[in-house]
Amino acid sequence: MSDFAFTENALSTWMRGEGRDSDIVISSRVRIARNLRSLPFPLVASEEQAEQVRQTVIGAAEQASEALGPLQPVRLDELSEVDRQVLVEKHLVSPALANESQEAAVVLSADESLSIMVNEEDHLRIQCLYPGFQVKEAWERATSVDDVLEAYIDYAFDDRRGYLTSCPTNVGTGLRASVMIHLPALVMTHQIGRVLNAVSQVGLTVRGIYGEGSEAQGNLFQISNQITLGQSEKEIVDNLEGIVGQIIEYERQARSRLVSESKIRLYDRVMRSYGILTHAAIMDGKEAAQRLSDVRLGVDLGWIDGLPMTLLNELTILTQPNFLQKTFGATMNTSEKDMYRAQLIRDKLVKSKE
Amino acid sequence: MSDFAFTENALSTWMRGEGRDSDIVISSRVRIARNLRSLPFPLVASEEQAEQVRQTVIGAAEQASEALGPLQPVRLDELSEVDRQVLVEKHLVSPALANESQEAAVVLSADESLSIMVNEEDHLRIQCLYPGFQVKEAWERATSVDDVLEAYIDYAFDDRRGYLTSCPTNVGTGLRASVMIHLPALVMTHQIGRVLNAVSQVGLTVRGIYGEGSEAQGNLFQISNQITLGQSEKEIVDNLEGIVGQIIEYERQARSRLVSESKIRLYDRVMRSYGILTHAAIMDGKEAAQRLSDVRLGVDLGWIDGLPMTLLNELTILTQPNFLQKTFGATMNTSEKDMYRAQLIRDKLVKSKE
Repeated sequence: MSDFAFTENALSTWMRGEGRDSDIVISSRVRIARNLRSLPFPLVASEEQAEQVRQTVIGAAEQASEALGPLQPVRLDELSEVDRQVLVEKHLVSPALANESQEAAVVLSADESLSIMVNEEDHLRIQCLYPGFQVKEAWERATSVDDVLEAYIDYAFDDRRGYLTSCPTNVGTGLRASVMIHLPALVMTHQIGRVLNAVSQVGLTVRGIYGEGSEAQGNLFQISNQITLGQSEKEIVDNLEGIVGQIIEYERQARSRLVSESKIRLYDRVMRSYGILTHAAIMDGKEAAQRLSDVRLGVDLGWIDGLPMTLLNELTILTQPNFLQKTFGATMNTSEKDMYRAQLIRDKLVKSKE
Repeated sequence: MSDFAFTENALSTWMRGEGRDSDIVISSRVRIARNLRSLPFPLVASEEQAEQVRQTVIGAAEQASEALGPLQPVRLDELSEVDRQVLVEKHLVSPALANESQEAAVVLSADESLSIMVNEEDHLRIQCLYPGFQVKEAWERATSVDDVLEAYIDYAFDDRRGYLTSCPTNVGTGLRASVMIHLPALVMTHQIGRVLNAVSQVGLTVRGIYGEGSEAQGNLFQISNQITLGQSEKEIVDNLEGIVGQIIEYERQARSRLVSESKIRLYDRVMRSYGILTHAAIMDGKEAAQRLSDVRLGVDLGWIDGLPMTLLNELTILTQPNFLQKTFGATMNTSEKDMYRAQLIRDKLVKSKE
């Protein structure tokens, strides 16, 4: 059991805000990969070297706290398995940091909008998360954090290649910008394949919401830049913003078409999902994601009143297996999780209506 | 448009009462087939002869009204097509009387527990309907009506063969006793085939709720005696009562087993159906019947509060295609019916909770 602040709420404070286009874009994220000049990359570092990295980064964060606000360092080896997975389910650390890294740590801001992963693939990964479609804002924040830290850390930098990173795909700016986007209408109208294919033609990557290799659930997709070298940070951010803007437009068009051509069938689907979520006693993760997607669309279309979007964001995270375990406090098998998940969704949705 | 009393409510007044075992047996019915000695059976009668039958029976009913209470004669050729089908959907007349009979009429008591069909397969078919498991009570009532009418009508009767009927399967007592029974647990546990097979081995017939040739919907079955000759009326009624009593027992056992072995899965199924019925915007007749069956089981098991069984009985009839048309007043295609059906169920269920 732990008393870390991040385990208290499913939704980070930053997520309670609303950004632009937040009916379609759930969140925007920018991460910057950096490494210390004097030490080998984590994959080839000894335990002592990795420990040195951790101490250096945490030390720098402490020194920078006047400029950045209070930061909490968390050593992952001091967490229970469940708490480590909760960090993943909240998107504060990657699965790789939680499962495969030595001397792994994360430095969190109080509202969890800033998280600095230590000893993942790179020595530091500075992540900034914003609600809605705010890639530029996230990038500006991440850059300012990066600038502050650079005063305390000697980064590995090459004049020709830029910032050096463990994996060549991150060399250069070390910047990855991404959005988590909800595209139910493009999925329902079978246009998603074509759209995602086009996206990958222009140097962007599409993933599930838990990063590389994860499946898209509940019509949520993560779209990010593929290339970090040969483009300026601004070009990367502008390119992502431009293309995501187009996808938002396609999704809006698909929604209007669905509403004008088969409103009653769409309404039926949305309301059935709402009826099932507020009544079912067993709900697996995949069904929950899909039905929450339907309900989110219903809220966007003004068909379901009094259901705040932040509650749906919260439920998306709360209903993940480890968060469930954390919430109900017991070790559970899959069937039990399906029952607790149903109960939690029911309670939260019914309560929000009262 | 018509102003006949029977079109005003889906549920006949008699159906608002509750009988024995009404968690499993919806209703009990006895009908007695009788013919006039002096005229040919309807199938071979001329129009004039059929008219004479109608006048004789309606005249007798009028004369008998002191003993039987007020009776309303209804000529089917004076009804709209929709009203005729509403009579069928309320089980007051058979599809054959509504669709195929010349000079067809029905005589109804005010609470619709007594209906006398005129010029169906036989000149008269006296039907008595009771809520719950009350075959004996229905039989006693039908017999008393028969006795009263016999004072005014000269029945075709043969000392050796008994009452003569158009179809040989009805000769003798002319008695058919039946129950409409709800067997969801036997269906879910795949025992229904075996049970219905056994039923047909002992001289009983199983049908859908709209009689011969109709499919069982919503786990509702009509069980009736096959044989009318060579058994006394009492034997027929006792036999049906005994066997239905056993089926009720099997259904109760299957329900207990389901509850003890897979309660949460059954509860999930019931509550999902309730959630869908209270939220869906499109609902076809088959799905409505199945989900109403689930909800009925949920009410029986005490899982859904404040939902009177009579409302479920009413919805079973209200959601039939012609009743829907009657209720909403317009000519509708199938998709429109599916929308009105969903709306009606939603409104009725939500209202009953307020």
